[in-house]
Amino acid sequence: MTNEPEKFSIEGLRDFSTKVFIHFGVPEKDAVIAADVLSLADVRGIDSHGVARLHTYFEMLSINRINPTPNIKIIRERKSVCTVDGDNGLGLVVGPKANEIAMEKASHFGSGWVSVCNTNHFGIASYYPLQALTRDMIGWSMTNTTKLVAPLWGAERMLGTNPISIAFPGLKNPPIVIDLATSAAAYGKIEIAKRKKQPVPKGWIVDKEGSISTNPDDMINGGAILPLGSDRELGGHKGYALSAMVDILSAVLSGANWGPFAPPFALRQEIPSRSVGKGIGHFFGAMEIEGFMDVNEFKKRIDDWIDVFRNTKPAKGTTGVLIPGDPEHQEEAIRRKTGIPLLPAVIDDLRDISRQTGIPFPNQG
Amino acid sequence: MTNEPEKFSIEGLRDFSTKVFIHFGVPEKDAVIAADVLSLADVRGIDSHGVARLHTYFEMLSINRINPTPNIKIIRERKSVCTVDGDNGLGLVVGPKANEIAMEKASHFGSGWVSVCNTNHFGIASYYPLQALTRDMIGWSMTNTTKLVAPLWGAERMLGTNPISIAFPGLKNPPIVIDLATSAAAYGKIEIAKRKKQPVPKGWIVDKEGSISTNPDDMINGGAILPLGSDRELGGHKGYALSAMVDILSAVLSGANWGPFAPPFALRQEIPSRSVGKGIGHFFGAMEIEGFMDVNEFKKRIDDWIDVFRNTKPAKGTTGVLIPGDPEHQEEAIRRKTGIPLLPAVIDDLRDISRQTGIPFPNQG
Repeated sequence: MTNEPEKFSIEGLRDFSTKVFIHFGVPEKDAVIAADVLSLADVRGIDSHGVARLHTYFEMLSINRINPTPNIKIIRERKSVCTVDGDNGLGLVVGPKANEIAMEKASHFGSGWVSVCNTNHFGIASYYPLQALTRDMIGWSMTNTTKLVAPLWGAERMLGTNPISIAFPGLKNPPIVIDLATSAAAYGKIEIAKRKKQPVPKGWIVDKEGSISTNPDDMINGGAILPLGSDRELGGHKGYALSAMVDILSAVLSGANWGPFAPPFALRQEIPSRSVGKGIGHFFGAMEIEGFMDVNEFKKRIDDWIDVFRNTKPAKGTTGVLIPGDPEHQEEAIRRKTGIPLLPAVIDDLRDISRQTGIPFPNQG
Repeated sequence: MTNEPEKFSIEGLRDFSTKVFIHFGVPEKDAVIAADVLSLADVRGIDSHGVARLHTYFEMLSINRINPTPNIKIIRERKSVCTVDGDNGLGLVVGPKANEIAMEKASHFGSGWVSVCNTNHFGIASYYPLQALTRDMIGWSMTNTTKLVAPLWGAERMLGTNPISIAFPGLKNPPIVIDLATSAAAYGKIEIAKRKKQPVPKGWIVDKEGSISTNPDDMINGGAILPLGSDRELGGHKGYALSAMVDILSAVLSGANWGPFAPPFALRQEIPSRSVGKGIGHFFGAMEIEGFMDVNEFKKRIDDWIDVFRNTKPAKGTTGVLIPGDPEHQEEAIRRKTGIPLLPAVIDDLRDISRQTGIPFPNQG
């Protein structure tokens, strides 16, 4: 069997995802939004967070682990801030609704800040600040996730890869889009190294004793990923602190399960021994640019920032400095023309969903 | 000459700093606050940001580079957000006032967010969230600083060490205090290695061609510090993105000088070739915990978080997981009893200020 990707149309995949969600009783309006979040990941080249995840959502919905018709509501509020209970809905539905609340608050109070409990995996973190950009707002998003990362000097998984995203609009230039996991590496990269029987770089993982290792099996068999910064010398305490910040704002502040108690996203993962709240947690923020500075002036200043940083003297042997979001913008330009490349394993998963639900398999694009 | 530190009383040093600021026409109330920010750094063991910096402030005030009586004002505002012009005052005065505005806004609107231009070095970043804790708020602070750091794949200094600080209160436990520079290392550590004629760890610096080096001279002579994460493999693009976020929120959004154009803090540093705004920039945030969750419940959850993380299985050969802020709390407990240890070079600087101003040199504690 070849491992070459085949290409599918953006619309075809989005339509398929929408129908899958509707199949499980998700209201059409919500299903469209959820499919849109997945689709954006595919369009921007963040393959791990697009339709490649649909089978996991499918499994979770199949066994009623996720509520298809949640009553998402504000449970505590004070003007620009509030806590939202996602009623165990799809994170792909709860996230956009909570982000909408943050933006609504920002349009009334200059800024809006929403901590969310009782929710699930929310897709790519940058979906949310990109929504804020369409309203001339600076948006933030964070989420805690299933444990994979050891705090510095720890020998067990205690934190997720806990991403932070924020975006800033340019006038002529595309926006600066920051979207980063607070871990030294993504779990997917460790799985790839294992499949290829290759070592991983020193600084990515520890074994089950907390010792630095380059063997991916050491991480997979009871070890952990290191935080951004890796060891003490290079700043691993900083990546740990950033991950802690995300965990606390998303999950401690909202009443969700924090740290090692965050429930797993996939069925094959271990259920935590203790519950300290409801579901996982997200955190969203939105700030009206107009409240700080004329929007056009700000966008011009961002254009200038981008131009100056792009013209940084390049380091020898590199292609020079990128602007955060560059790789995704380049990939988006290509994929909007040529469609979404899917690996055979992902196509098999989608065919499996098609067989089980009767929803026609999407055409190749 | 011995290089052993001598100990001084906290009050003696704070009083000395206050009088030095008053000597240059800083109003007494402002001088007390400015000295308090410096003192907190000394008390918490962040020696690089305490009275060790007083001589630099002294020089800047001596040549009227800093305005001792600034008219600090809100220049644009929308309910929970605003921009403050610091009128080229001491960052140690502008910072606390702008942070106060953020907290006042939070008490009215649930949260408050202040971007500040036309300001100077603001001391330790954690001073500000620690103030917010006294009002049961979650506080944030950021600032841009003079260029020292290369963006990933760059061969020149374009960003400062741009710190981020945030703090969360416990009920029985001391607070979690996060305060981190977004660079792989502090400049002071590279200077120490140079003095000791020792190499620095791989991942801290590049030379003037942007190539990784372990020779501190390579950084000092036209090279740069790397961002948190160091190289591409370990996530240097993430540290660069976080530093960019701090730069934009603090300086692009407020109308201050961003990136490589941030004016230097010390006289011996190069003046940037171009001005794109006024002074450097800060960014402050405050959120009322009550707006999200009952304050006592939140503090209990933080206590639980701290206890669980402290009990993480320790990595082999380490003392186990620390809570962000632990080293500073431990140092504070010692120094509140025994006083502040100052190195001979710092004592010489203070004696010089004493000679030039006629303010009596503080007694040893």
